[in-house]
Amino acid sequence: MKPLVAVIMGSQSDWAVMREACRVLEELGISYEKKIVSAHRTPDWLFSFAENAPKQGIKLIIAGAGGAAHLPGMVAAKTLLPVIGVPVPTTHLQGMDSLLSIVQMPAGVPVATVAIGAAGAKNAALLAAQIIALHDEELAGKLADRRDKAARQVLETEEWS
Amino acid sequence: MKPLVAVIMGSQSDWAVMREACRVLEELGISYEKKIVSAHRTPDWLFSFAENAPKQGIKLIIAGAGGAAHLPGMVAAKTLLPVIGVPVPTTHLQGMDSLLSIVQMPAGVPVATVAIGAAGAKNAALLAAQIIALHDEELAGKLADRRDKAARQVLETEEWS
Amino acid sequence: MKPLVAVIMGSQSDWAVMREACRVLEELGISYEKKIVSAHRTPDWLFSFAENAPKQGIKLIIAGAGGAAHLPGMVAAKTLLPVIGVPVPTTHLQGMDSLLSIVQMPAGVPVATVAIGAAGAKNAALLAAQIIALHDEELAGKLADRRDKAARQVLETEEWS
Amino acid sequence: MKPLVAVIMGSQSDWAVMREACRVLEELGISYEKKIVSAHRTPDWLFSFAENAPKQGIKLIIAGAGGAAHLPGMVAAKTLLPVIGVPVPTTHLQGMDSLLSIVQMPAGVPVATVAIGAAGAKNAALLAAQIIALHDEELAGKLADRRDKAARQVLETEEWS
Amino acid sequence: MKPLVAVIMGSQSDWAVMREACRVLEELGISYEKKIVSAHRTPDWLFSFAENAPKQGIKLIIAGAGGAAHLPGMVAAKTLLPVIGVPVPTTHLQGMDSLLSIVQMPAGVPVATVAIGAAGAKNAALLAAQIIALHDEELAGKLADRRDKAARQVLETEEWS
Amino acid sequence: MKPLVAVIMGSQSDWAVMREACRVLEELGISYEKKIVSAHRTPDWLFSFAENAPKQGIKLIIAGAGGAAHLPGMVAAKTLLPVIGVPVPTTHLQGMDSLLSIVQMPAGVPVATVAIGAAGAKNAALLAAQIIALHDEELAGKLADRRDKAARQVLETEEWS
Amino acid sequence: MKPLVAVIMGSQSDWAVMREACRVLEELGISYEKKIVSAHRTPDWLFSFAENAPKQGIKLIIAGAGGAAHLPGMVAAKTLLPVIGVPVPTTHLQGMDSLLSIVQMPAGVPVATVAIGAAGAKNAALLAAQIIALHDEELAGKLADRRDKAARQVLETEEWS
Amino acid sequence: MKPLVAVIMGSQSDWAVMREACRVLEELGISYEKKIVSAHRTPDWLFSFAENAPKQGIKLIIAGAGGAAHLPGMVAAKTLLPVIGVPVPTTHLQGMDSLLSIVQMPAGVPVATVAIGAAGAKNAALLAAQIIALHDEELAGKLADRRDKAARQVLETEEWS
Repeated sequence: MKPLVAVIMGSQSDWAVMREACRVLEELGISYEKKIVSAHRTPDWLFSFAENAPKQGIKLIIAGAGGAAHLPGMVAAKTLLPVIGVPVPTTHLQGMDSLLSIVQMPAGVPVATVAIGAAGAKNAALLAAQIIALHDEELAGKLADRRDKAARQVLETEEWS
Repeated sequence: MKPLVAVIMGSQSDWAVMREACRVLEELGISYEKKIVSAHRTPDWLFSFAENAPKQGIKLIIAGAGGAAHLPGMVAAKTLLPVIGVPVPTTHLQGMDSLLSIVQMPAGVPVATVAIGAAGAKNAALLAAQIIALHDEELAGKLADRRDKAARQVLETEEWS
Repeated sequence: MKPLVAVIMGSQSDWAVMREACRVLEELGISYEKKIVSAHRTPDWLFSFAENAPKQGIKLIIAGAGGAAHLPGMVAAKTLLPVIGVPVPTTHLQGMDSLLSIVQMPAGVPVATVAIGAAGAKNAALLAAQIIALHDEELAGKLADRRDKAARQVLETEEWS
Repeated sequence: MKPLVAVIMGSQSDWAVMREACRVLEELGISYEKKIVSAHRTPDWLFSFAENAPKQGIKLIIAGAGGAAHLPGMVAAKTLLPVIGVPVPTTHLQGMDSLLSIVQMPAGVPVATVAIGAAGAKNAALLAAQIIALHDEELAGKLADRRDKAARQVLETEEWS
Repeated sequence: MKPLVAVIMGSQSDWAVMREACRVLEELGISYEKKIVSAHRTPDWLFSFAENAPKQGIKLIIAGAGGAAHLPGMVAAKTLLPVIGVPVPTTHLQGMDSLLSIVQMPAGVPVATVAIGAAGAKNAALLAAQIIALHDEELAGKLADRRDKAARQVLETEEWS
Repeated sequence: MKPLVAVIMGSQSDWAVMREACRVLEELGISYEKKIVSAHRTPDWLFSFAENAPKQGIKLIIAGAGGAAHLPGMVAAKTLLPVIGVPVPTTHLQGMDSLLSIVQMPAGVPVATVAIGAAGAKNAALLAAQIIALHDEELAGKLADRRDKAARQVLETEEWS
Repeated sequence: MKPLVAVIMGSQSDWAVMREACRVLEELGISYEKKIVSAHRTPDWLFSFAENAPKQGIKLIIAGAGGAAHLPGMVAAKTLLPVIGVPVPTTHLQGMDSLLSIVQMPAGVPVATVAIGAAGAKNAALLAAQIIALHDEELAGKLADRRDKAARQVLETEEWS
Repeated sequence: MKPLVAVIMGSQSDWAVMREACRVLEELGISYEKKIVSAHRTPDWLFSFAENAPKQGIKLIIAGAGGAAHLPGMVAAKTLLPVIGVPVPTTHLQGMDSLLSIVQMPAGVPVATVAIGAAGAKNAALLAAQIIALHDEELAGKLADRRDKAARQVLETEEWS
């Protein structure tokens, strides 16, 4: 099945975070591909990836990066596909640098930014799913079920201590 | 024409920022409605708005709020439509409070967050447009033209001083 | 005994912090109930909880949440009972996001915010107790004794090294 | 009428912010007194004020201060009346210093902290009112009316541009 | 020997940091006393301590505290002895809250603030020593020797890897 | 009269802040000299100034600087006289950079840091005065009078609105 | 004269800051060209610029950008010429976002970062000059004269008030 | 072989970070020397080091320091050789203090600042290499090979999970 979503990350060390996005996509049955695309080590590859993504049927790009995180914004500059940016936590500044480098894009080139770290990676996949579900009723149903289940888990919490 | 996008904001004082989103939607010919929906002053209205939005044909919600900015996240909790959050600048903390209140959503309920202030509001509209353009070639063409024009403005800058 | 205080939290993972509030309430003999109420996973339950709390004799609500912490503010928007907000520490931003999301409420809907983490949870309980003690002399006496004891612990510290 | 609430502030320059608290108290018909009490310039007066407040019928103390804002916490250390702290904005750090100095109290001595600046001052008064309203149905009614009115203002917003 | 310096701290848990101050004072042969004095748990004791310190021959006060760190500033408000404040690191905000609560004192009541944590505690003792040494040539000599030794340690560092 | 205190600053643009220190010294009758000493533009002059200060009878050095504020720390490295550092506010980071550059000194070389800006400059002078007053009863009396006056100003505040 | 230095910036609005770099280059007689090169609006032009710069005799690139400032880092990824990054101040976060986006580059692709704003722009030019002066004695002499002059300005400051 | 680069650091505890710079220099065959030079413990040695460095053939100085990190800026004030500053992480503020103390230099004295910690140390060496390579084709070739290798590592990443 041709992938609808591309999950890219600046370095294999980002996988610990970005696998959370892939798990959610798998759970929802959304086809995806995952790639290492480094803005700083492979800028040409980044550009050819971004240019070719629409031709290959990709509809959405999830990009994770840390520190001076340029990957999401540069992909967004090279394609009109929606780009979802995941700020990967960093050793010293805890991902605050990643967050600001991703979210503070200038007018003209948006990046849909989610939370720092694993929660953000999961939400990137869910956001992609919600966008696809605008034209996919089966997926919309799965997302509704997922939310119902999450709600029930809260509501059915027994007494604890 | 039934609106595809709802632009909501917590207070009329957010309009100075959020009008930038509306201007871009108008420029691109995307139908939208704009409303004041306050998470804190009108929580019930927020819920009924979010529940009814899909039924009324809304496909995307752009929500701007400042400070302890709960509007985007609460709308996102009540609908599976994609929600784009715009952190409105604040008097004392310059919108850093708004940004963290919007972007740091827990796993399960994503908000697509953009930059603080007017640049973010414009980009919220563009992100909405890019999502709609996945199934609207005419709009995709307009977005491509818009980017070309932005690039030409840079490339044609004459000498200045 | 019907509970006077409700201790709610967005997720069971907040219990490690919020149990400190419950311990203080128990120590002081204040009846309470504790519940998981998630603003994002169970928004309807949040609303019905907040609407019903006064009818069930609840006088004060202590709400703990982390990250884009919307629970305290949304409960406060749905009830006129005093709401005390506890910023739960977060993995990446240490609870600074929680603090700003809780304390920076707009005019009209206050949340009484305490310190990040366990110290804040304890103080939430004590603040609740001080409010109840305005009309409960026995409890006022217990609080006075508790402070005296805390003072004596300091004053009786022997030489140490 | 003997005041129920004391509104204190570290310096007359805090009045621009703290008057917002007084206006809300007046609007709600809650008797109050206002005083300059400086933790650093008049520590003894602070102590005698805090010791005497309960004897004079004060039920709640609203304390505003900026910078190394010690007033709310020191009053809280000297009385078991609930203390609500308002972080007053500062010239250089915008009130972030005030906020942390007020909210990060150690376990044992709570300060109910509200937002930085005028919104916080208003909410301090409303929080005081909500506490008093636990035993004052007329005031509870006024607060409910106030919220209804705030909601209607949102709901009745006509088209604007 | 009557103590010249008082080393006080808000809680025994601050000892891990504040012992570094005591070690330096001992090394330099400066008489000192150490005490737990809590601004929040023992405000009256704080005041009587500060009032009596000059009468008992104390010349300088080193005060360590964390979080909403009011101890150094309140002691400084109650005495004209120079007060040196040590920001003790905190669990969640790493001592940034302590630093701002100590250093941002209003005009009129200075606290001589040093670095967060153990380095600051050592420097508090050295600052006290430098002040005493203005009128104590023997101590001035010891301080000069200490600096010479520290310089030699750097200069004599052999090759390493 | 030979100056007891040297007030130095990195640039004449710091004068707007540092004049507050000089005014307080004049008010208290403490002799001082003021100089521009730039760590970055005149490092050799900084060193000769610091080496000669004790020989010329200087007892205390007040050093103001902004941004990467190295002046207080480098003077402190070159003399055993107590150095009081004043963080001068900066255009972009409001003096937070100045504060951290001054206060976070390593163990061995203390700088007594005061608040950012004019309040800090005044307090630097008062701290110097408190140190000198340890051996100058007349000055101690002036400081006590000054505090009494400040307290009376608070206590005598009439009703205002 | 073929330019040795390229001064590029993401937008003409950065010129108010970046002109300071150009003025210093002119003062020192260093040939330069200035261009608008936007990472987000003209990514292809950025790449061709960076690829061609060495062929055209450029030795050093000074790149100014604000917000999610990707220009310096992306140029650095496309060339082995030294790249000096100037964080341009931003409306809401004062350039802290620009600074972190520029300085926090991953291992492998350095950007020589200078201070936020005009001081940084001037220093970018001086850093370029110092690098060129390693092989240009005349320029080295000019830089030495410039420093001497700056020192003399400090040393010759007359009394002022 | 006479060293071209001097790698200096404020304390031997900085070696864990600064060794990364030395490793890269060795890998590239760039001669270097490494020294402990403490701005605060050995200010005179810092000055003589900086004055003598050019005479001994040093072309570039890499200086690492933490906290109130004055070493890079003071060396830069004493020499016209390019100085590259590495912010060493700190226990409490994670190197944010180091970063601001190094990067926020005033106009006139630039420090080329790189990222906090080990990535920054590696990049300091690469930046030095890129500067030397402006006049050293062999080194330029090595740097190009290094980048090619880094790119290939990304491009050749096989499937993983």
